[in-house]
Amino acid sequence: MKGISLALSVYAVCVVGLFLKMFALSCYQGYFRLRYLAFTNPEDAAVFKRAAQLAERPQVCRAGRAWMNDLENIPLFIALGGLAIAVAAPGTQVAWLCGVFTVARCVHTLAYLAGWQPWRTLAYGVGVLCLWVLGAMVMGQVIAAA
Amino acid sequence: MKGISLALSVYAVCVVGLFLKMFALSCYQGYFRLRYLAFTNPEDAAVFKRAAQLAERPQVCRAGRAWMNDLENIPLFIALGGLAIAVAAPGTQVAWLCGVFTVARCVHTLAYLAGWQPWRTLAYGVGVLCLWVLGAMVMGQVIAAA
Amino acid sequence: MKGISLALSVYAVCVVGLFLKMFALSCYQGYFRLRYLAFTNPEDAAVFKRAAQLAERPQVCRAGRAWMNDLENIPLFIALGGLAIAVAAPGTQVAWLCGVFTVARCVHTLAYLAGWQPWRTLAYGVGVLCLWVLGAMVMGQVIAAA
Repeated sequence: MKGISLALSVYAVCVVGLFLKMFALSCYQGYFRLRYLAFTNPEDAAVFKRAAQLAERPQVCRAGRAWMNDLENIPLFIALGGLAIAVAAPGTQVAWLCGVFTVARCVHTLAYLAGWQPWRTLAYGVGVLCLWVLGAMVMGQVIAAA
Repeated sequence: MKGISLALSVYAVCVVGLFLKMFALSCYQGYFRLRYLAFTNPEDAAVFKRAAQLAERPQVCRAGRAWMNDLENIPLFIALGGLAIAVAAPGTQVAWLCGVFTVARCVHTLAYLAGWQPWRTLAYGVGVLCLWVLGAMVMGQVIAAA
Repeated sequence: MKGISLALSVYAVCVVGLFLKMFALSCYQGYFRLRYLAFTNPEDAAVFKRAAQLAERPQVCRAGRAWMNDLENIPLFIALGGLAIAVAAPGTQVAWLCGVFTVARCVHTLAYLAGWQPWRTLAYGVGVLCLWVLGAMVMGQVIAAA
């Protein structure tokens, strides 16, 4: 490594990976909207000379709930992971937490789309646990420096 | 302090605090889903041998609207607060703004869940005001450095 | 420039600009809620001695969908743009990508509110393309440093 620490490298790869995962979820939604030509915005439906739908397709709604759960967790990961690096928390542990969080969120999305329980709740729990440990490490560094 | 500035310390504590507040809101939603065994995902309802509900419980919907408001404000705080530290805005003022924002968002969530007006709108306004001042401080540093 | 790099300056201006754009969208929603005195929270409607509405006004719903799309894209921009600066990706290119992304998201919001197609989808695509290039630049720096 020159100039970029291990923790920052792993964190950067995880953020890019989560971006690709979220982008894949957008594509999944777009695929079902296009496959059934079902759009809730009149101007979108008009492109295909259809009437606007009152509700989204069930797959689009399900993917939307997976998105919402991502939005509740991933920005916090980006913040807490970045903070852990900024306050110089132990690098190897931060790198591991970033990796486990990213894998857990990918499993969560797959389990949500497929309706697999208890795997979805388990993956959610692992992700939240990583956030708790990252938060505790940040607090530990702040208290140690005070 | 050694190595971690006052502003970064306070910002870090505020981000961890907001994470705990958002996590508490998830627990509140989960509590009402479990108490009434009311789930909108069929695979969740099946765990408790129930049929899926068409709509969430009113308390879950209300907490969901508080969440949405958090999502519109807290990521912007994380970004603007982090930027204010990165461009070396005056530390004491940044620390105060972070603290006031965090308290305002906690009051906002409590007031939303309890349906207290005008306290909810007041807390929302204080939070937005902190974001405006943080944004102005970032712009001031960028213009001063140009 | 003294102390703040070009890329960080442009990134900071873009984040503040996106904050103002998102704030304008909140004002747009509030304007339609107040103009028709249509509120879904009973405690909000009670301030104006009205009954709570079951659904939001169509303009509020449309602005809400624009918000959701912002929430899916802007936090990722804040993360990937900040990372590109942290791993010292080429500054001029990062500055251009930040500027183009910010303009694209402003066009996206206007096109969403006005129902202009294909401009909305085009603006969304330009924004996502900027995120892809930022992600690729971050990965390039991480691989080069390994």
